Amino acid sequence: MSKQYNDFITLVKDINNLRAVEGLLSWDQETFMPPRGIEDRSLQLATISSITHEKLTSATMKGYLDELGSTKVRETLTPEQQTNVREVAWEYHRAAAIPADLVIDFAKTRSVASQNWIEARKKSDFTLFYPYLAKLVDMRIRMAEAIGYDDQPYDALLDEFEPGLRTKEVASVFGRLRDKLVPIVSDIIDSGIRPDPSIFGQEYAVEKQKEFNHLVATKLGYDFERGRIDESAHPFTSGTVHDARFTTNYRPDNMSFSLFATIHETGHALYCQGVPEDHYGTPMGEAVSMAIHESQSRMWENVVGRSKEFWTPLYPDLQKQFPSQLGNVGLDAFHGAVNDVHPSLIRVQADEVTYNLHILLRFEMETALMNGELDPKEASTVWNEKMEDYLKIPVPDEAHGVLQDIHWSLGYFGYFPTYALGNLCAAQFFNQAEKDIPELWTHIEQGENHILLSWLRENIHSRGKSLRANDLVKEVTGSALDEDIFIGYLKKKFGALYGI
Amino acid sequence: MSKQYNDFITLVKDINNLRAVEGLLSWDQETFMPPRGIEDRSLQLATISSITHEKLTSATMKGYLDELGSTKVRETLTPEQQTNVREVAWEYHRAAAIPADLVIDFAKTRSVASQNWIEARKKSDFTLFYPYLAKLVDMRIRMAEAIGYDDQPYDALLDEFEPGLRTKEVASVFGRLRDKLVPIVSDIIDSGIRPDPSIFGQEYAVEKQKEFNHLVATKLGYDFERGRIDESAHPFTSGTVHDARFTTNYRPDNMSFSLFATIHETGHALYCQGVPEDHYGTPMGEAVSMAIHESQSRMWENVVGRSKEFWTPLYPDLQKQFPSQLGNVGLDAFHGAVNDVHPSLIRVQADEVTYNLHILLRFEMETALMNGELDPKEASTVWNEKMEDYLKIPVPDEAHGVLQDIHWSLGYFGYFPTYALGNLCAAQFFNQAEKDIPELWTHIEQGENHILLSWLRENIHSRGKSLRANDLVKEVTGSALDEDIFIGYLKKKFGALYGI
Repeated sequence: MSKQYNDFITLVKDINNLRAVEGLLSWDQETFMPPRGIEDRSLQLATISSITHEKLTSATMKGYLDELGSTKVRETLTPEQQTNVREVAWEYHRAAAIPADLVIDFAKTRSVASQNWIEARKKSDFTLFYPYLAKLVDMRIRMAEAIGYDDQPYDALLDEFEPGLRTKEVASVFGRLRDKLVPIVSDIIDSGIRPDPSIFGQEYAVEKQKEFNHLVATKLGYDFERGRIDESAHPFTSGTVHDARFTTNYRPDNMSFSLFATIHETGHALYCQGVPEDHYGTPMGEAVSMAIHESQSRMWENVVGRSKEFWTPLYPDLQKQFPSQLGNVGLDAFHGAVNDVHPSLIRVQADEVTYNLHILLRFEMETALMNGELDPKEASTVWNEKMEDYLKIPVPDEAHGVLQDIHWSLGYFGYFPTYALGNLCAAQFFNQAEKDIPELWTHIEQGENHILLSWLRENIHSRGKSLRANDLVKEVTGSALDEDIFIGYLKKKFGALYGI
Repeated sequence: MSKQYNDFITLVKDINNLRAVEGLLSWDQETFMPPRGIEDRSLQLATISSITHEKLTSATMKGYLDELGSTKVRETLTPEQQTNVREVAWEYHRAAAIPADLVIDFAKTRSVASQNWIEARKKSDFTLFYPYLAKLVDMRIRMAEAIGYDDQPYDALLDEFEPGLRTKEVASVFGRLRDKLVPIVSDIIDSGIRPDPSIFGQEYAVEKQKEFNHLVATKLGYDFERGRIDESAHPFTSGTVHDARFTTNYRPDNMSFSLFATIHETGHALYCQGVPEDHYGTPMGEAVSMAIHESQSRMWENVVGRSKEFWTPLYPDLQKQFPSQLGNVGLDAFHGAVNDVHPSLIRVQADEVTYNLHILLRFEMETALMNGELDPKEASTVWNEKMEDYLKIPVPDEAHGVLQDIHWSLGYFGYFPTYALGNLCAAQFFNQAEKDIPELWTHIEQGENHILLSWLRENIHSRGKSLRANDLVKEVTGSALDEDIFIGYLKKKFGALYGI
């Protein structure tokens, strides 16, 4: 038996090595690759991912999974071994279910669709893109049918990013969240208070920003022996427990962008560096899901990183780094500016209150598209209506509306909800940490971020994929995912800032 | 038929993609990888190289090669197609010949041996290393037996780096070269002339050096849209025709190191960028061999890069870049300093006159080891004797003697000769370019390096692997490899500098 399991794990680790390679190829593509390298890189990625797919769906893999998955054998496995078998079986099922020609067709369509999306966004003309959107929606429905689902096709897509989660559960949480968020946003607008974020629009030397970002990441507990910070157009984290790199992006008109992107990505990278090393290369040595990953980045970025406590010991360093820009700006003004809330058109620039409404809109549209309740042709109109409803702002053009995100052009449906789920989990986990750690905020105020990090390591990172997202939330916090904890967090924080 | 050839090429390109991936993984390992990433990287490289080996030696590949290699079919192929079949068949034969357990055993032994070499070099104690040297020699002999050879085992090893070249041919050229070089070195020593290289030992800001290296590479014709310059402990070039990166290394005590490493690697990279793009991913789109590669780097570094003509238009820029260090140093003094010849202990620091003697010593020892004429135990003693004979300097310790290079600890035998062959080819190619291009030196003196580059593109780079090294030399220069051309080049250049 043990031999069979070991052979299985050897194959799983082989697949994991290929994925790590894919990660590095993509990282390099976004950071250092010379412009003309792009075609070769696409060929390299195609070769690697086709080998990965071949190995994952091989008869050898099926043989291992059949054997190890049988009731009799399963009982002889340790819980960790059972997790590895369960998770690989889940991946196998998804990968093997989709016919090869659909996989190839989808890859080609994505490639053309994303090219056309770039063009459509440039011209701000949705009519140039919706035929591709329609094609991708159709393909995704066919994929969902091939994979199978309990209740509706979107379940099968959501499952890719949030294994085990169901559309109905998400819809129910998100519905309540929307109803509670919309009035908070209205109250903040009505408060008439608006902090001054213009302090970030001055000139901040990139080299100085880099130094400070390095300091912040270090203060958060990021291990540079197992990572590095570079630049890319869109910040991201990539890598393994021993090599968890991330990127940030310097924007001339907004210094806070690179700073909070750094804190956000450090949150992701701390999770990468915190999974069990001795399970390296297997699901037990991996993060739970996208939402749980996002809970880590959002907790550090928003709950901690935009708190006055966090900046109490650190803000003097930031002032020293930028004396002419921030020397005369007090901590309160700075704290206000990093918590500027106002409805805006672009998701990636949204603050932590309005952000989730951008997601709810997308989730509602995605499920409607997948259920055939929304004609892709109508997507722009529906988008604009929802922006009016939820955020009370008119959409001036399609580039700032339905065409703003790349996700749909790549056929990603089911991905957006993980961002909002991450925000809810962040609040709920942090709420639990506050209960478990006496004086948590005092620790943070004294620069002792490692206290929270240790709690996250113990309660979340070290578990690998042993529990799925819903079960992890229950195990760690004692209750199911609950939007009220997030709403409570917002009301407390922004109530104080905006006097509402 | 065409279908069969196309399927073959698809597989060949797949293998090439995997090699490009391996190249990037290694490049990253030497440049940006965080320290703790090393173990994962080794696993990734092992996975990729085992898949590459599997594909190269697969029954599918054998089937293609059998079919395409049959006399009847071969006649229907174009010359380019025949080249691709010939070169892949050669690779297949080498890879398939060696038993799998020997491949694995060799990889493990290399890994242990190179660790022990590091330790032995640190302690300057050859007794810590020779048992591993003995093991590797033994394994290499077994590999040579498995691959097969015409005359002696070393043929099979040399063939890995210089396909088609035979030990006897090399031994005969190198024997004559040694007899002609030793007196030149003596004459230079006896001349009593010694230029002053201390101008390079001052402090040169690395950022300023980087800027100038960028300028030099640009002046040589390097395309930054298809490449980039980074730093690593040992300079190297890696990549594809569309992404040919190289590295240099900044040494606080010697600014000329990074400068000439940059010119040297630019030479390699120009070759990479010059192979036929439309044959990308196949032997027709690749460099001929190590020696031909080295001929390009050495030509630009030594023949061109250490000439007064090359620096005539460029030296004022270097002076402007480093006014306090070089403002008062004239072009003649600079030219003398970059052509400082003196026997020294370390190969990688040797000048272009003594360099080949370091190689001849290694070649003679390697062939003797492989023929069983030299006991690995005696390697240090023989090394020191040869250093006395050829370079007239005593070896003070084994770290500066037999333990200085990493090559043998990695089981590389047959690699060293390509360096000296590269020097000979460089002189012979350049000699031909002088005949073909009226006023070549005047062009160089006017900063028009592209004239020589075009000649190299046309005569060497654009041919891909269509000719093997010996045949290429004959085709381009009209005669076989001839050490007298190199000797003539040295006598002319250093005769003038040292009055001999």
